[in-house]
Amino acid sequence: MNCEILCVGTELLLGNTVNTDAADLSDMLSGLGVNVFWHTVVGDNPARLAEAVEIAKKRADLIITTGGLGPTYDDLTKNVLAECFGRKMEYHPEEGEALKAWFAKNAANRFTQNNMQQAYLPERCTVLHNDWGTAPGCAFEEGGVHVIMLPGPPNECVPMFRYRAVPHIKSLSDETIFSHQIRVFGIGESAVEDRFRDKMERMANPTLATYAKFGEVMLRVTAKAHTEAEAEAMCAPVVEMVRRELGSAVYGVDVDSLEALCLDLLKEKGLTFATAESLTGGLIGARFTALAGASAVYKGGAVTYCNEVKAHMLGIDRDMIESKGAVSYETAAAMAKGARLAVNADLALSATGLAGPDGDGVHPVGTVFVGLADRDNVWVRQLKLGTRRARVRQLAANHAFDMLRRYLQGLPIIEG
Amino acid sequence: MNCEILCVGTELLLGNTVNTDAADLSDMLSGLGVNVFWHTVVGDNPARLAEAVEIAKKRADLIITTGGLGPTYDDLTKNVLAECFGRKMEYHPEEGEALKAWFAKNAANRFTQNNMQQAYLPERCTVLHNDWGTAPGCAFEEGGVHVIMLPGPPNECVPMFRYRAVPHIKSLSDETIFSHQIRVFGIGESAVEDRFRDKMERMANPTLATYAKFGEVMLRVTAKAHTEAEAEAMCAPVVEMVRRELGSAVYGVDVDSLEALCLDLLKEKGLTFATAESLTGGLIGARFTALAGASAVYKGGAVTYCNEVKAHMLGIDRDMIESKGAVSYETAAAMAKGARLAVNADLALSATGLAGPDGDGVHPVGTVFVGLADRDNVWVRQLKLGTRRARVRQLAANHAFDMLRRYLQGLPIIEG
Repeated sequence: MNCEILCVGTELLLGNTVNTDAADLSDMLSGLGVNVFWHTVVGDNPARLAEAVEIAKKRADLIITTGGLGPTYDDLTKNVLAECFGRKMEYHPEEGEALKAWFAKNAANRFTQNNMQQAYLPERCTVLHNDWGTAPGCAFEEGGVHVIMLPGPPNECVPMFRYRAVPHIKSLSDETIFSHQIRVFGIGESAVEDRFRDKMERMANPTLATYAKFGEVMLRVTAKAHTEAEAEAMCAPVVEMVRRELGSAVYGVDVDSLEALCLDLLKEKGLTFATAESLTGGLIGARFTALAGASAVYKGGAVTYCNEVKAHMLGIDRDMIESKGAVSYETAAAMAKGARLAVNADLALSATGLAGPDGDGVHPVGTVFVGLADRDNVWVRQLKLGTRRARVRQLAANHAFDMLRRYLQGLPIIEG
Repeated sequence: MNCEILCVGTELLLGNTVNTDAADLSDMLSGLGVNVFWHTVVGDNPARLAEAVEIAKKRADLIITTGGLGPTYDDLTKNVLAECFGRKMEYHPEEGEALKAWFAKNAANRFTQNNMQQAYLPERCTVLHNDWGTAPGCAFEEGGVHVIMLPGPPNECVPMFRYRAVPHIKSLSDETIFSHQIRVFGIGESAVEDRFRDKMERMANPTLATYAKFGEVMLRVTAKAHTEAEAEAMCAPVVEMVRRELGSAVYGVDVDSLEALCLDLLKEKGLTFATAESLTGGLIGARFTALAGASAVYKGGAVTYCNEVKAHMLGIDRDMIESKGAVSYETAAAMAKGARLAVNADLALSATGLAGPDGDGVHPVGTVFVGLADRDNVWVRQLKLGTRRARVRQLAANHAFDMLRRYLQGLPIIEG
């Protein structure tokens, strides 16, 4: 199936918003064995949108739109698509009621009549109810072309695709596509590619592909068969081969993230942890507590953005900080030990370093120390994570969670 | 001038790479008075690229391509474009020499003959020399359509555009666009729309448009004129009108975010702050420390994800927490006061509540208390932020920063 992703939004054409939807949907579509051959972006302009739809109709058999489903007058994707495919718009009472209920519950003061626009969808469509926002999506088929419309905001578009569009797309093909995502941390993409290039080029079904994910590598094994069981059986040996090749750098298969894996392992083992964050300023805690159920294993900790707080909240010896420096092996170790005791947790993670742009005159920007403490020991990883502030901070958090999962998986903690 | 940005690269269609080039170029183009009406992405496929070029020729008078200028067999943008515009490729000796010199200097061992491909460009073009990589870009005009080709890697594409393409484009356009971004917090997009719909529909130049930004609304005022000064003067009265209509919900014009505004105001006033985060688990600190220079005003704080940490790190009376509850006005107030003292800061923010999915049997999910303390007072906002965990947490952080900026701007703190 050949797919065009058609994103609607003037903010994309003004460079106000980066088009992450197109990347995220493309990524997930390739996992479904759908060929994405075109991304098109047009603004909130009915004529140009209609032109774009006419072009897409001729070359694609699946058109996925993002954006323009909201309540405002420039949200015109539904109306234009309906017209291009010769369908009327009709009111969907169940969506109307859901909208009224949502506003009554969440934002009674913000309800305005134009919000009800969102309950109008093309006639004879499959409604894709939106549990992540107010604007429902929809799907229909006309003249052999399948259309799926999704909202634009990434925090709605991505779950809407995963939980609403994917089942619909799967139902369109008599072949089943099954894929495993192998998550790897600690090896670069090109190194992984070098390891598997020959195999990847030879393989047809199942296929193996690598993707660079912010500071990680993801390998996707995809098989096509008539039943999911068949397809899954075809994937299994490839997953095993990759595990053998990459060893403990493979942190999981079909897991969401390093922190999600840590949450599962901590629950399993009945262990709790704490955090002491300098460089990351709360990012480790924020990423972990983004996971539902985090409170079962995470007790909290300190954001020690200045030395005085390191000393006061974690009982770290000021002189040691002065002599060794806030960015040092010793301080990272003391932060982890101090946080574990202060919070009375089984384990603790710490991060200190220089995210930049300014250095400290001693270490280059990107110098980072990440620590892990348990009752008896402390481990510290020293890292050089480049010069881009956002990347340094995220990678430092990744390393903290990698140390934690290695501890919980009984693997060596410092390597990788 | 109407522009299409045509990005070439299979990695974009696989979702392996996010298309930041299109956003960065669009942003800079709007500042040049160029209307970007289309983004198109195709893979490294000559037939589909040629089709896309034929479509672009008909609708755009400026086509900017990114990607496919490199030395490998799948770098075919130049050849396909040359063919579509009926031009031969020709060797540019000065670029050939530059390439040989570059490799001699930087990567003698990696020089292979196919690198010389990069010195072949369409005949009669303006060469755009690449000081940030090896592949030169080029520009030409054919039948009233202007073509500019740039390399794909963002660290080459962006400077190549800024320092090579911009001077070329300025010579082609006689208009300038100027725009202001008005940032609003505390009013929904559709409510803002209702306020301005009639005006927005009547306005042609300048224009006014609204965009929903996760929990916020952004209004963009855009004017076209012959000089930037003229355009700016045309925007000014619209900005004033919006400020009058929305009052203190307008938190800034051309500022990046609530937290960025807080950073500027805190520096200006020489004040520091601390955080005590329960619900948000470090998100307030993480968002603030994402800003370069945060350490000048942010001292740190506590992530109190369980009551024992609230008591231990912030010296909050356990009995009070037990009697009033962890999710209460009193606890939010005590957290803010406690964090300010523990960290010895001028101000402190706190957040406690239920992000879900599980409630506490007392309050519904989405119940949130956000606190702000200074030396003498404490303010607490009680909120109902819905049932979506990620949204509840982000909105709670937004409210914390909104209270802080209102304090620093001398506005009432609880409203909004």
